[in-house]
Amino acid sequence: MSGKTDSGQVYHRECTGAALETVKQHLDDQDITLFAGCFCPFVQRVWVALEYLQIPYKVNEVDPYQKPQELLDISPKGLVPALALNAFNPPRALHESTVILDFLEDLAAKSTHRTLFPPSTDPYAKALVRLQSDHINRTLVPAFYRYLQAQDPEAQIAGGKEFHAAIQYLVELFERAEREVGGTGLWAEGGDLGWADVVVGPWIFRATNALKHYRGFEMPQGKKFQAWLARLFEHPAFKKTCSTKELYLDSYERYAFNRPNTSQVANAINSGRGLP
Amino acid sequence: MSGKTDSGQVYHRECTGAALETVKQHLDDQDITLFAGCFCPFVQRVWVALEYLQIPYKVNEVDPYQKPQELLDISPKGLVPALALNAFNPPRALHESTVILDFLEDLAAKSTHRTLFPPSTDPYAKALVRLQSDHINRTLVPAFYRYLQAQDPEAQIAGGKEFHAAIQYLVELFERAEREVGGTGLWAEGGDLGWADVVVGPWIFRATNALKHYRGFEMPQGKKFQAWLARLFEHPAFKKTCSTKELYLDSYERYAFNRPNTSQVANAINSGRGLP
Ligand SMILES: N[C@@H](CCC(=O)N[C@@H](CS)C(=O)NCC(=O)O)C(=O)O
Ligand SMILES: N[C@@H](CCC(=O)N[C@@H](CS)C(=O)NCC(=O)O)C(=O)O
Repeated sequence: MSGKTDSGQVYHRECTGAALETVKQHLDDQDITLFAGCFCPFVQRVWVALEYLQIPYKVNEVDPYQKPQELLDISPKGLVPALALNAFNPPRALHESTVILDFLEDLAAKSTHRTLFPPSTDPYAKALVRLQSDHINRTLVPAFYRYLQAQDPEAQIAGGKEFHAAIQYLVELFERAEREVGGTGLWAEGGDLGWADVVVGPWIFRATNALKHYRGFEMPQGKKFQAWLARLFEHPAFKKTCSTKELYLDSYERYAFNRPNTSQVANAINSGRGLP
Repeated sequence: MSGKTDSGQVYHRECTGAALETVKQHLDDQDITLFAGCFCPFVQRVWVALEYLQIPYKVNEVDPYQKPQELLDISPKGLVPALALNAFNPPRALHESTVILDFLEDLAAKSTHRTLFPPSTDPYAKALVRLQSDHINRTLVPAFYRYLQAQDPEAQIAGGKEFHAAIQYLVELFERAEREVGGTGLWAEGGDLGWADVVVGPWIFRATNALKHYRGFEMPQGKKFQAWLARLFEHPAFKKTCSTKELYLDSYERYAFNRPNTSQVANAINSGRGLP
């Protein structure tokens, strides 16, 4: 199934590839329903966490640009991701990817006993992960959209530099954690999927398809960086939530040409406001 | 001791009033040193948390506009707050108020057994607090600075409305928490200081002095809101970290007239970028 934008462009409204297979396995009722949009990186965060933490869930794919009432009922701005928590009466719900990630982590601590944080009980190791996450949310993610939406060549060059610098700084934070607490997440060889990998992964992935296609962006070539990238993209919890390349190219076409667009993300970037 | 801005304006560089008394009681070496700036609301968050969680600390007052090397050593952009963690060799440090709050909460869980989160072990109650906090960080705080820095009358009116709406939405989130989980923090009568109170308190306080003085801002008059305000401002952990009114008026004078300014916060707002 696909939708059309105001300018008549066609875009996917349902997952493809590996992500489609995963959706098919998650159509039965559960205590948690994930309201998802097939292209959405904020959704992918939550989806990867559900998979990694082994928390049962149902997927409900919606088009956040043609918001069904059931989405508006549980997410005030009609944004995905949102969770319906079906075991409660009256019903409960949550929105905001970062809030949901913390919630799932707390749920898992009581049920599946899995965690995306470093296994050590050192509060400092956890704080280094929160520092990585803060940088991703407040710097790297906005830089991604500014770069993708930049139209004139100078702005595109500046956008590319800014996004590249944001990745480099994340690497510095990963290396600091390796030095100080023996590593967090997948950065160190032999590490397992971690919080910051989940928080940044969706944009890193889209940088290798949409940003590469529309802006010619190249990832840092360093051996260690490329090894991290490979571990991330091959991690089962991540891989299961990835659609095929053409889905991302379709979805980001409007952003890349900065076409009139109802996306709250695109509009926030255009007006110099924080992301929704 | 006071400093001078580029335009010759005088401003405080050390706390006054109750905050000054508290500084005097925290000059001895401890495992944690808080690098503080007397006017800074991000610092006040951390300071209130240290007090509430009863974690021993030393205060080191610095002027973040004339950054001493010891600040740059532990905070990459030279921003306060930062913590030096003196018990480690080689030394460790943390910056970013939200990251530090989580760190202190984790420390307290292992030592003083105090917490700013709801006492219930229901992950949903904690998630509602994170939702409040996300709204404060991403919407309410930027709205405060946009309002304070707005120069032409129309922008000031728009800024006032935006800030007011951000407070109203926080109230909605507080009321939702009261309805769904019996309340979080000080909002409900009989509640104790909570995470969101600490995260928002410093700006609410500055709204009653700097924003009132420079923009004529009035807080919502509702009885329940005023009762919350009184409980917050009278809470010992909060009150102990407040300087006298003239300190805040001095400190925010430059912002209110949007004078040439080296503040990274002021410059981010002027250029439509996210806060540092
Ligand atoms: N702050 C939100 C952002 C979510 C978001 O921006 N989702 C986009 C899709 S990637 C959306 O729902 N857009 C619909 C719209 O713009 O109306 C989060 O972290 O969950
Ligand atoms: N994101 C930081 C912001 C801290 C911040 O902006 N601090 C200001 C004082 S309120 C500062 O240090 N400014 C110095 C400068 O602008 O260079 C946090 O949450 O800790």
